[in-house]
Amino acid sequence: MTTHFLDQAVALQVLDNGRYSGTTSPDYANMVGPFGGITAATVMQALMRHPDRLGEPISLTVNYAAALADGGFTVAARPVRTNRSTQHWTLEITQPDANGDASTVLTATAVTAVRRETWSVDEVPMPAVPLPSDVPRAKMPRSVAWVQRYAMHSITGGLPTVWDGQGDTSLLRMWVRDEPERPLDFCSLTALADVFYPRIWLRRAKPVPTGTVSMTVYFHAGSAEHAATGTGWLLAQAQGQAYRNGFFDQTAQLWNEAGALLVTTHQIVYYKE
Amino acid sequence: MTTHFLDQAVALQVLDNGRYSGTTSPDYANMVGPFGGITAATVMQALMRHPDRLGEPISLTVNYAAALADGGFTVAARPVRTNRSTQHWTLEITQPDANGDASTVLTATAVTAVRRETWSVDEVPMPAVPLPSDVPRAKMPRSVAWVQRYAMHSITGGLPTVWDGQGDTSLLRMWVRDEPERPLDFCSLTALADVFYPRIWLRRAKPVPTGTVSMTVYFHAGSAEHAATGTGWLLAQAQGQAYRNGFFDQTAQLWNEAGALLVTTHQIVYYKE
Repeated sequence: MTTHFLDQAVALQVLDNGRYSGTTSPDYANMVGPFGGITAATVMQALMRHPDRLGEPISLTVNYAAALADGGFTVAARPVRTNRSTQHWTLEITQPDANGDASTVLTATAVTAVRRETWSVDEVPMPAVPLPSDVPRAKMPRSVAWVQRYAMHSITGGLPTVWDGQGDTSLLRMWVRDEPERPLDFCSLTALADVFYPRIWLRRAKPVPTGTVSMTVYFHAGSAEHAATGTGWLLAQAQGQAYRNGFFDQTAQLWNEAGALLVTTHQIVYYKE
Repeated sequence: MTTHFLDQAVALQVLDNGRYSGTTSPDYANMVGPFGGITAATVMQALMRHPDRLGEPISLTVNYAAALADGGFTVAARPVRTNRSTQHWTLEITQPDANGDASTVLTATAVTAVRRETWSVDEVPMPAVPLPSDVPRAKMPRSVAWVQRYAMHSITGGLPTVWDGQGDTSLLRMWVRDEPERPLDFCSLTALADVFYPRIWLRRAKPVPTGTVSMTVYFHAGSAEHAATGTGWLLAQAQGQAYRNGFFDQTAQLWNEAGALLVTTHQIVYYKE
């Protein structure tokens, strides 16, 4: 069995205590540099591999400080506070600058925790949608590598086919999963949190330049629920809330086919005009 | 004119380059320790006072790593990457531990940016609600100091009066402003992002122990819009999305009376049972 594209992309070599080296993967290339989701997944991988980790991820915030150049990089993960059942992390990706000095290209914070059995409920129900087999494969540009790493079946809010500046909503719903299929885990979910093309393209029906500045992911399920979800489809929903003065936000949810809300996530995105 | 409670609470003394000392304020005391919103506002204050700051805040994520003890603390703000029009920050609050060593009680990241005139729109409209003068003052426990620092007029989702375990939604809408009135700025907005009592109390009609673990605030307006909002009311809306295994999330919005969406914010919260 060959290693999945995602596992190749997030593969890390141990440098020393909490520091790892990695290399960008052409399999997840975006129009310029790597897909932001795979970069976030690599940060998650550093966290998951850290020998001092307590529990499983609850939240992750990644800040894209600069464009990650294709090639090698260093990820550092540091537990800054370990409590009885929660642990707080700071993480960073650096690359050498023109002088060879380490330059920060991404900062992140994360919280891990030992989860317990408690009263539990999903307040935001999975919307009523057709089955994955009943909706068409989304039409996405085949020239962008990372898009080919996902099977996306569009329900509403697919990429506009007419860019006439006449959009009126940014709501997107689609079924999505890794392609080829891969059992869900914290790394793949982190990448999937960023799987949406920019909301402003749909809201405006205009493909202006954009770049995610900061993304936060809340994990509502642990590895047991991920294993139960397996290679199944996820229902992914995203919508923008406000667009002003060069930045807009996105709020999104990922449910498994059984209707469990696995992830809620938010990001703020730069746009050019 | 006396200094407003909030300005007293977030007051900082310069220690050295990007490091400040502060003291918790009994005016914003919560049941145990300070109101998390005022702690976040103090982090924002360190960012706003930093001499190297470029532009204004776009996003702030604060992670409450440990209970902040009443008394003195140190806030450190560090610009880790300065680009042409954006700047990335890491911030930290420390307090001395039992041995007198600096112990991390809060970590944060922030992005500031020079905002430009662009196409802009709010996609999430302010809900149709009655005027602040037409809804009653929210009934909140007068014994908790920070609650008295806000005028809250409840529209829906006020604190339950019967704790019978029979809740069915966590949606809260209220008009809110500082009390006494104070012109809006990034610090007060940061505190207001955390002004909601725990969503799980409403969803369950059961007051279980809770504590915010991580909060992210996206600022969709700059100081000019804050000045235009002045001391006016804000419409504050919050709702939980998922509650599972000891953690739930909250998504929230703050609009000014003119209907501009000033802030979208999210947090993940620990709950005990």
